[in-house]
Amino acid sequence: MVAMDAVTVISHRRDGLVQSAAELRAVAEAAAHGTWTDDQLAAWLMAAYLRPLTLDETADLTLAMAASGKRLDLTGLPKPWLDKHSTGGVGDKTTLVLLPLLASFGLTMVKMSGRGLGITGGTIDKLESVPGFRIDLTPAEMVAQASRIGLALTGQTPRLAPADGKLYALRDVTATVGSIPLITSSILSKKIAGGAETVVIDVKCGSGAFMRDLSSAKELAHWLTEVGRRAGLRVATHVTDMDQPLGRCAGNALEVREALAVLAGREQGRFTELCVHLAVSTLAEVGRPASEAEVRQALVGGTALAKAKEWFAAQGADISVFESENWCIAPHVHEVSWPGEPGWVKRVDAGQVGHAVVHLGGGREKKTDTIDPSVGVETLVAVGDKVEPGQTLFRVHTAGQDVPDILSAVQVVTEQIVPCSLFLG
Amino acid sequence: MVAMDAVTVISHRRDGLVQSAAELRAVAEAAAHGTWTDDQLAAWLMAAYLRPLTLDETADLTLAMAASGKRLDLTGLPKPWLDKHSTGGVGDKTTLVLLPLLASFGLTMVKMSGRGLGITGGTIDKLESVPGFRIDLTPAEMVAQASRIGLALTGQTPRLAPADGKLYALRDVTATVGSIPLITSSILSKKIAGGAETVVIDVKCGSGAFMRDLSSAKELAHWLTEVGRRAGLRVATHVTDMDQPLGRCAGNALEVREALAVLAGREQGRFTELCVHLAVSTLAEVGRPASEAEVRQALVGGTALAKAKEWFAAQGADISVFESENWCIAPHVHEVSWPGEPGWVKRVDAGQVGHAVVHLGGGREKKTDTIDPSVGVETLVAVGDKVEPGQTLFRVHTAGQDVPDILSAVQVVTEQIVPCSLFLG
Repeated sequence: MVAMDAVTVISHRRDGLVQSAAELRAVAEAAAHGTWTDDQLAAWLMAAYLRPLTLDETADLTLAMAASGKRLDLTGLPKPWLDKHSTGGVGDKTTLVLLPLLASFGLTMVKMSGRGLGITGGTIDKLESVPGFRIDLTPAEMVAQASRIGLALTGQTPRLAPADGKLYALRDVTATVGSIPLITSSILSKKIAGGAETVVIDVKCGSGAFMRDLSSAKELAHWLTEVGRRAGLRVATHVTDMDQPLGRCAGNALEVREALAVLAGREQGRFTELCVHLAVSTLAEVGRPASEAEVRQALVGGTALAKAKEWFAAQGADISVFESENWCIAPHVHEVSWPGEPGWVKRVDAGQVGHAVVHLGGGREKKTDTIDPSVGVETLVAVGDKVEPGQTLFRVHTAGQDVPDILSAVQVVTEQIVPCSLFLG
Repeated sequence: MVAMDAVTVISHRRDGLVQSAAELRAVAEAAAHGTWTDDQLAAWLMAAYLRPLTLDETADLTLAMAASGKRLDLTGLPKPWLDKHSTGGVGDKTTLVLLPLLASFGLTMVKMSGRGLGITGGTIDKLESVPGFRIDLTPAEMVAQASRIGLALTGQTPRLAPADGKLYALRDVTATVGSIPLITSSILSKKIAGGAETVVIDVKCGSGAFMRDLSSAKELAHWLTEVGRRAGLRVATHVTDMDQPLGRCAGNALEVREALAVLAGREQGRFTELCVHLAVSTLAEVGRPASEAEVRQALVGGTALAKAKEWFAAQGADISVFESENWCIAPHVHEVSWPGEPGWVKRVDAGQVGHAVVHLGGGREKKTDTIDPSVGVETLVAVGDKVEPGQTLFRVHTAGQDVPDILSAVQVVTEQIVPCSLFLG
């Protein structure tokens, strides 16, 4: 095959022509192997932002990106082979619960996770707060561990879908992040390279998420499903609320502790409901139906927790974190109370809570920032809750005495408010 | 002033917002000083291609690019200060004639020229065929020479409008060359940095030019005039035919010899007519009107030739090229004759003649190619000419025996053809 000339491929995208699979393969290979210059890739990305790829083109690009490096081969492992993804938000620790919960039902769960940036947390940062937890499993270690205990998770590795790593880094600095076809190919190429056959994707929507409005979140869900179908990957999507923080905790170690409490059946509320709902619908999706009661029993009965402990141990973690909450503790806890009249919570701004966590040092403003895993914010009220004067709204876990403004994230009104739905559209 | 964040500036262009002078200055400074990465500049360029700059934005960008390096200061030199530009074509040696011709009328001519790429020749390559000709004058040497003899010409220097050099190199590899606002800012920023107050621009149109159709050539002419006006530069534009080669010769040394013949009043035809026309209209434009007869007299009477000899000598050239045509001669000359029936020339394809010159080694396929200054093509017929069987159409000057197909560039028909106009629109 004649190598595709970069300028020709860029000009076809620029002019809004339909690009062939060979042209899109040239883009993915250029990203993975440096056969184009970075400025040529950036020009193609901006052209793709302004002349968006079709569903078919996005599937071709996704497959080419997935093929740009190694692919995990799960042959011989029990089916179904499942992955789980969230588009990210504030307090979103769903992976920490769903992986062991679904593995406890016999599914093979293999997942590559990322780090947090801005208000969006990352699973890898959360797990790194656990002493000893290894987040650098090799592809061979991933397959071996999944074969042994049914689940494995690693940080992003340049060995899988290297084209995505390059394109994502360029999109981040060239104002080309917010393109649904590019987002779709980025997510799905990693899933395909990770070996999964089915992937459950939670598209977050609201002030604490990348997708702020329901129509764009639904559009992304549609693209993920349709491109997945064209690329031979079964994709089940859910659009869920991220206008208020998900669950109680936002902050790395705090979120791990909350996830372990959910796995132990000790935590109630919207986050637990999300985990149960996603587990039930995923089990139905892959032909292993279980009732809501059976899923709840896995949490309160100890099988999910046992699987989580097996997982943590397999990846080198100190499993005393399952016995005590006294690990990775911030030195100060400030309680923020309601100073006003009684009323109902109309809004808890997830974006503002997320920014507070970043401000405390628990998140990154830019990629090279280091984070403090111990800090974070506990949000003790949700939309629709009644609040009384002096009631504690937040517990802010900090390294020093500086407490960011967080009270203004809560809006309280005098008329009763109906709790907003977690599942949207 | 707060430094402009690259991602913000790129996203404003991407979203089609009107960019402030400060934002466009950030782009020019980033290009000149490396404050953005190349991929960020490339993303901005593609966004600018697809979300074109307005006239006002283009003027702001032009001024910022002109201010990105040194500017020639012509203070004290006789006015008017004039520059001349052609958008380039096959056989276009107009600069070699117009500079000394206009300088012989007392105008101060200061010009920075480029090299050829593809079928488009470059003045610097042409002059380099002349033994000793220096094309690397410093800004100080330019001003001193123009002060002494009224004209000076140099190759592109990173000291003048460095932002243009960077942006042009990026546009070349990112499929963002063909944007009228970007072309306009590239041309005019160099003219402003070169110190001119008036610039005469010949926009070439046809198969041997960048602008293939009249409407886009006219649009470019309009942009050059309007952006020039906003940037404080008087711009006089002419749209002229480049569907057939300009004049007799295409090829570096051949074109210098042809230009010297025109300056000596020994050459007739369309190229001579173009030079006379541009000189008359330029002299009128700058308030030094001269009749067509006076301009022709400068050619046949020896004043233009004397100024050319003064110029060549000032820049170190061997002025024996004015006495003999036996310099930089290709070893072989092949005559290509008309093999068909008598008729009239309907077409001489300038693009095909240009490609033949490149094929012979007289032009570059890519920037790093070296060229053979001695080779080229003499075209001995023009549209509207009558041809007889066996009449010589071309003389092909080559280094070896290989002669590219050139006959098919000529179309001869049995009905009489009216010569096409040199001046369009």
